[in-house]
Amino acid sequence: MAQLSSPKSASEIIPLQSFDTDVSPEESMINRRKYIEDLVEQDLASVSDISLEPGKLQKRNIENLIGSIQLPLGIAGPIKISGGNSNGSYFLPMATTEGTLVASTSRGAKAINMAGGASAHAKNNGMTRAPVFKLDSISDAEAFINWVHTNKILLQSESEKNSHYLKFKDITCYQLGREVWLRLSFYTGDAMGMNMATKAAQQICDYIQQHYPTARLVALSGNLCTDKKQAMINIINGRGISVQAEVKIPAEIVTKVLKTDIASIVEVNKVKVWHGSAYAGSNLGYNAHFANIVAAVFAATGQDLAHVVDASAGYCLMEEDNNNLYVSVTLPSVPAGDVGGGTSLPAQKTARDLMLTDISSKRTISTNRVLAFAEILACGVMAAEISLHAALAQGTLASAHEKFGRGGRHENK
Amino acid sequence: MAQLSSPKSASEIIPLQSFDTDVSPEESMINRRKYIEDLVEQDLASVSDISLEPGKLQKRNIENLIGSIQLPLGIAGPIKISGGNSNGSYFLPMATTEGTLVASTSRGAKAINMAGGASAHAKNNGMTRAPVFKLDSISDAEAFINWVHTNKILLQSESEKNSHYLKFKDITCYQLGREVWLRLSFYTGDAMGMNMATKAAQQICDYIQQHYPTARLVALSGNLCTDKKQAMINIINGRGISVQAEVKIPAEIVTKVLKTDIASIVEVNKVKVWHGSAYAGSNLGYNAHFANIVAAVFAATGQDLAHVVDASAGYCLMEEDNNNLYVSVTLPSVPAGDVGGGTSLPAQKTARDLMLTDISSKRTISTNRVLAFAEILACGVMAAEISLHAALAQGTLASAHEKFGRGGRHENK
Amino acid sequence: MAQLSSPKSASEIIPLQSFDTDVSPEESMINRRKYIEDLVEQDLASVSDISLEPGKLQKRNIENLIGSIQLPLGIAGPIKISGGNSNGSYFLPMATTEGTLVASTSRGAKAINMAGGASAHAKNNGMTRAPVFKLDSISDAEAFINWVHTNKILLQSESEKNSHYLKFKDITCYQLGREVWLRLSFYTGDAMGMNMATKAAQQICDYIQQHYPTARLVALSGNLCTDKKQAMINIINGRGISVQAEVKIPAEIVTKVLKTDIASIVEVNKVKVWHGSAYAGSNLGYNAHFANIVAAVFAATGQDLAHVVDASAGYCLMEEDNNNLYVSVTLPSVPAGDVGGGTSLPAQKTARDLMLTDISSKRTISTNRVLAFAEILACGVMAAEISLHAALAQGTLASAHEKFGRGGRHENK
Amino acid sequence: MAQLSSPKSASEIIPLQSFDTDVSPEESMINRRKYIEDLVEQDLASVSDISLEPGKLQKRNIENLIGSIQLPLGIAGPIKISGGNSNGSYFLPMATTEGTLVASTSRGAKAINMAGGASAHAKNNGMTRAPVFKLDSISDAEAFINWVHTNKILLQSESEKNSHYLKFKDITCYQLGREVWLRLSFYTGDAMGMNMATKAAQQICDYIQQHYPTARLVALSGNLCTDKKQAMINIINGRGISVQAEVKIPAEIVTKVLKTDIASIVEVNKVKVWHGSAYAGSNLGYNAHFANIVAAVFAATGQDLAHVVDASAGYCLMEEDNNNLYVSVTLPSVPAGDVGGGTSLPAQKTARDLMLTDISSKRTISTNRVLAFAEILACGVMAAEISLHAALAQGTLASAHEKFGRGGRHENK
Repeated sequence: MAQLSSPKSASEIIPLQSFDTDVSPEESMINRRKYIEDLVEQDLASVSDISLEPGKLQKRNIENLIGSIQLPLGIAGPIKISGGNSNGSYFLPMATTEGTLVASTSRGAKAINMAGGASAHAKNNGMTRAPVFKLDSISDAEAFINWVHTNKILLQSESEKNSHYLKFKDITCYQLGREVWLRLSFYTGDAMGMNMATKAAQQICDYIQQHYPTARLVALSGNLCTDKKQAMINIINGRGISVQAEVKIPAEIVTKVLKTDIASIVEVNKVKVWHGSAYAGSNLGYNAHFANIVAAVFAATGQDLAHVVDASAGYCLMEEDNNNLYVSVTLPSVPAGDVGGGTSLPAQKTARDLMLTDISSKRTISTNRVLAFAEILACGVMAAEISLHAALAQGTLASAHEKFGRGGRHENK
Repeated sequence: MAQLSSPKSASEIIPLQSFDTDVSPEESMINRRKYIEDLVEQDLASVSDISLEPGKLQKRNIENLIGSIQLPLGIAGPIKISGGNSNGSYFLPMATTEGTLVASTSRGAKAINMAGGASAHAKNNGMTRAPVFKLDSISDAEAFINWVHTNKILLQSESEKNSHYLKFKDITCYQLGREVWLRLSFYTGDAMGMNMATKAAQQICDYIQQHYPTARLVALSGNLCTDKKQAMINIINGRGISVQAEVKIPAEIVTKVLKTDIASIVEVNKVKVWHGSAYAGSNLGYNAHFANIVAAVFAATGQDLAHVVDASAGYCLMEEDNNNLYVSVTLPSVPAGDVGGGTSLPAQKTARDLMLTDISSKRTISTNRVLAFAEILACGVMAAEISLHAALAQGTLASAHEKFGRGGRHENK
Repeated sequence: MAQLSSPKSASEIIPLQSFDTDVSPEESMINRRKYIEDLVEQDLASVSDISLEPGKLQKRNIENLIGSIQLPLGIAGPIKISGGNSNGSYFLPMATTEGTLVASTSRGAKAINMAGGASAHAKNNGMTRAPVFKLDSISDAEAFINWVHTNKILLQSESEKNSHYLKFKDITCYQLGREVWLRLSFYTGDAMGMNMATKAAQQICDYIQQHYPTARLVALSGNLCTDKKQAMINIINGRGISVQAEVKIPAEIVTKVLKTDIASIVEVNKVKVWHGSAYAGSNLGYNAHFANIVAAVFAATGQDLAHVVDASAGYCLMEEDNNNLYVSVTLPSVPAGDVGGGTSLPAQKTARDLMLTDISSKRTISTNRVLAFAEILACGVMAAEISLHAALAQGTLASAHEKFGRGGRHENK
Repeated sequence: MAQLSSPKSASEIIPLQSFDTDVSPEESMINRRKYIEDLVEQDLASVSDISLEPGKLQKRNIENLIGSIQLPLGIAGPIKISGGNSNGSYFLPMATTEGTLVASTSRGAKAINMAGGASAHAKNNGMTRAPVFKLDSISDAEAFINWVHTNKILLQSESEKNSHYLKFKDITCYQLGREVWLRLSFYTGDAMGMNMATKAAQQICDYIQQHYPTARLVALSGNLCTDKKQAMINIINGRGISVQAEVKIPAEIVTKVLKTDIASIVEVNKVKVWHGSAYAGSNLGYNAHFANIVAAVFAATGQDLAHVVDASAGYCLMEEDNNNLYVSVTLPSVPAGDVGGGTSLPAQKTARDLMLTDISSKRTISTNRVLAFAEILACGVMAAEISLHAALAQGTLASAHEKFGRGGRHENK
């Protein structure tokens, strides 16, 4: 076990991973925390309360464990959904510290429910990984691409040979001069699948290195994947789950629940979300605050929080439709899972089961759970968009009211 | 207090907020949780363990509280930093469930420390909010913009009158036809400042509605802010904290700690981060995985998790410099705070204090803490970039070694 | 003079510029053309008709001259404009080979005229050039930026000392690690100004190299200018002329002239121009076909055709406004000139004078001609947007009519 | 024929197209020009010199013809090319008014030739048109997409039935809520093909309107085409011709012809083209000045000048490779043709034939002429990139020389 001492500088301190030697995961956590407490002369009690099992976290979820962070868990909804993989009324678990977010989402959900519910449709595009190779010349790069196409079946079987869950989907080749990216996509069962896809990509790359040695692997991940960064390629060619949701809300419900009118909300959507985002160069952010709901639900349900970046890219459309407010949201690239990573932590698993249970039938969705998860998430995102759009539109009304002292009239906006 | 029953559908259930009436926050949380347990016929015990105080969370951080979610907390580093607002060796608290992330960041930190440490420089660009107005015509819009410029001092005093902390910085006007965005920026002390800025923007908008009634407010936030979405305007004209960090790592440390060579790492950076991101249309993601570190540190220290989206935009440059690996990272728009929102939760505050304590002097940074936070974060981001770049480069080498029968070992990437 | 011979390969042929020695520009053109005719065994008569004066072109507009290319010149409009720098009815000279373009623009102009005319407002943001420097470290880069700010007056006088026309406007500094771009902007009189700005930038860079030798100049143009490429920085911070135009067209004129209705046109604008461009990743192309009109007018009036790229970026908004079709167009970054480059060629100058002459008063605009040029251009762009939007909307109607057997006619789109 | 008079305002003048009645095209051109001369009281002689035949232009290339514009034609090169569709030494015809452009391109060509020539590879991705439809709901939209996939063969035969040249390639569906774009791609023979593709798209849309009436056509072109605007979808999924070219230039040729060294040029490429463009938000402009060469060659050879916008998007990579300067350029989306539009004008056709003639064999390329055109164009673009990069790099050297008075030494860049 590591020796405690009072070091002077970074280079003199004991490597934090060395505390893992010879003792139980619990002890190593406690010893490490104490060592750090000594080092920084601070009390770390408030991070020491942990209901997670260090033995399960180690080698799977984290290194150099010293305790835990708690996020408060609130519940929005329920939202009535008629979806491709979900059908019923579902709660939305949200781990957040931003006041009003849960309440606002619930208000949007109320409007949706009074309108008869939302519909939602998720689709699995497969998880992608794009290794990049370098050839000697453009014609060599083209020959390599041809070889890849010709040997696709072989590469497929290489990629699948070490996993029961992963299924090869496709390879798309992208060329920039003599550099070639193979954008590999795989179906990864109930897992978000990035690790699985990376291992399968490694298998393919190993095979290529052996059978096509002049294609030099530059990096197993070449950023055309694109993981944990927003990218048009994910929008245009798909990655992870893509999901869309919509609702038609009659004018009287807009007035009663959302305290504004259809024209004002639609105007906010047009000017803020479309004109504003375009002008700001927010090229994947044609929405008001997708990220708020995605982050809260991802945190509650054990998804990778770095995936909030890609998952929150998307489009929110609002328009008048026969005296209804028509709303749709599109989240083209949601990486999410039901197994693996943080999804197996107890509270996160509980929150996910809660989210996937229809409160009318008491039934918990058991098939295509990731698709159902994406559908309920998208409806939550839509509820929050509706509520924030309405609040912004109402703000205008409010000031208009004050200005004209006419107590509630709002004309020709 | 709300009545328990067994509802059939979304519209029949008791609104979750109604549990807050007449009872203590603790009781309302428990009653609500029980009610939901009945509704979904599930045991929610695993989310019921909560060390947070419901009374403090209510009306500030969350609604419809039912318990908490725990994230494991690991520690990377320390990293030796010579920064504009930080000077010493600092740990990086990371709340994550992605295995190897803490270890990989620590490996990068080790290389940085052996090279003598990183330098880092943060700058406060102010928090922005951009209300959008609509005028009757382009010339009316131009007249309005002139009026805004002429009355800037008045608008400034309006914005500051309800806060001791907020200081007006500037107004920049953007026009699209007859629509006008006022991109307002404010210094918001130690707070991330989005709420403060929104209130100040409301003050300015109220004043405008009264004194310039023909400028109709469409939305208090017009997406040129740009909040919780990636946007070029934040990169070009700044928002929140911008921070840069750099290090020069001698070739022998690259070989010893990072198990590869400078040329290979630089090649990975060029092909993956620059060519790959450009080709993918990842226009704000010129890096390998900034989001991983930003998400883990934000979760650990109580920052708004939806801000992972904007904060993780940025650039990572690597090049050979006189037999050193030169690395710099730029995070142009980091919204972060030391007070407000989730930063006041006990564990999160502890983690932040831990992060801001130099282990050599035992001194905790007390001035410009948000800038110091950004500098340490950026160095952590850089450490993780170095380690991942090296792992990718080593993979290439490894397979090359195998290929040539030279027995290079390459493990568990 | 160059010797004629029958070469076998590229390396054996006479350098084409060598024909310029010892003879008149006319002769050198003819000799060179003949030499090429021999080389390729083709008759180049069709490019030999030239009314331009070779002696004026040489050393100013082109090298290795062999003749000319003719583009047919058509006239659209007139368009009635009430602008900041233009006031009257103006023709739009268009050099194009795309059938229907002139006619379609004229149809839009007719609708505008019947609605009482368009209004337009141009503004000069100055021409920019952004040299990029490299320092040893981030802190050196910051020190350099501070030095630049401190010495702005000196740099200004350096930049202006060799030109009577160029006026320094401002310097904005952008930093990426230890790389620093100085985005310099200058007012360049009636010239488009890129050459003038480049020379002024060279003056500034020379001064910096002498007085701040540790700031190593990497390139006099660092692509943050940004010239002849579309770029958000030009939209957000301005470059060249920015111009906006608008019109309100009553419903009955929409029906009579444009053969469709307001709602259909507005729908085309929303779905095609806003949703479509966003989804396509056409981040600076929120319009239907700005490029068509910009290219035709630029070709007719002697502007640099490579500037069609940046000049055609922009936004077209359409909405219903009290039973009018409201349209606005914004071209944020138009590089254009009235002197220099191709603007001095006789036909191009004539076309520009024609464009700048009000047909009611017969007066040719003589002050702020570049701003007036941009205003008339923008109104032409708007006319063409209106006409194409209407044609697309009518197509929908037409097919709807056919479908319902109501005999709607729809011709040759 | 139209009557001449002295009108007061736009509404009183004779519509310019009315001059086409009852007289020959030549007469109508002359009459129209005279009428305008009277209107604006200007002499239009300088645009009256026209060698084009008005009768051929009318109804095909332009309306309201009054004369012509001349552009000077210079010749760059020749460039030695070993391409997929071109093999020999080719001249580059450039119609431009920007001094030094032809000379600079020729200098780059000289370096390429001395290095043994460039290689180039063009590919035809088909021309695209993307009509957009609106359905009642997301599930209706999905049903429509399924129907389209099921009936692809039928839609294909509809699209091909009125043309001998057009061959259907594929349909890709994109969905945003209940809006559906069908991105149709067609092979269009030797034509650029936008008109042909539009007519084929109309056929498909007509068929859909008849057989799937609930799919309401919003616009025959929905901006996911994407035509005459830069767009990521064209880069990622292809449109028109994509072409790549490369060359390896030995160090001594860099020194002798380009007057600088490999390291300096590579540094310019990295900092300006990659860092600069990324930072500027120039997301499709990773090059120095593709637009200059594309515009000049397009003008010379009768291509649509509005296509300079999309054609000039692209990537330029430079790196050191075994003491060579390795350069590649990628132009992913070049719309160009050998028949139709402006390509049939005599001088433009001559210039194109000249460009497609190998000066060694005197043979003019007769098959796949558009692909060959793109290859020669790309090599010209590359030549100009090399020359400008070198000039920028040399500029640095020059000032370094002055500074140190060491007459030619350049160290440690």
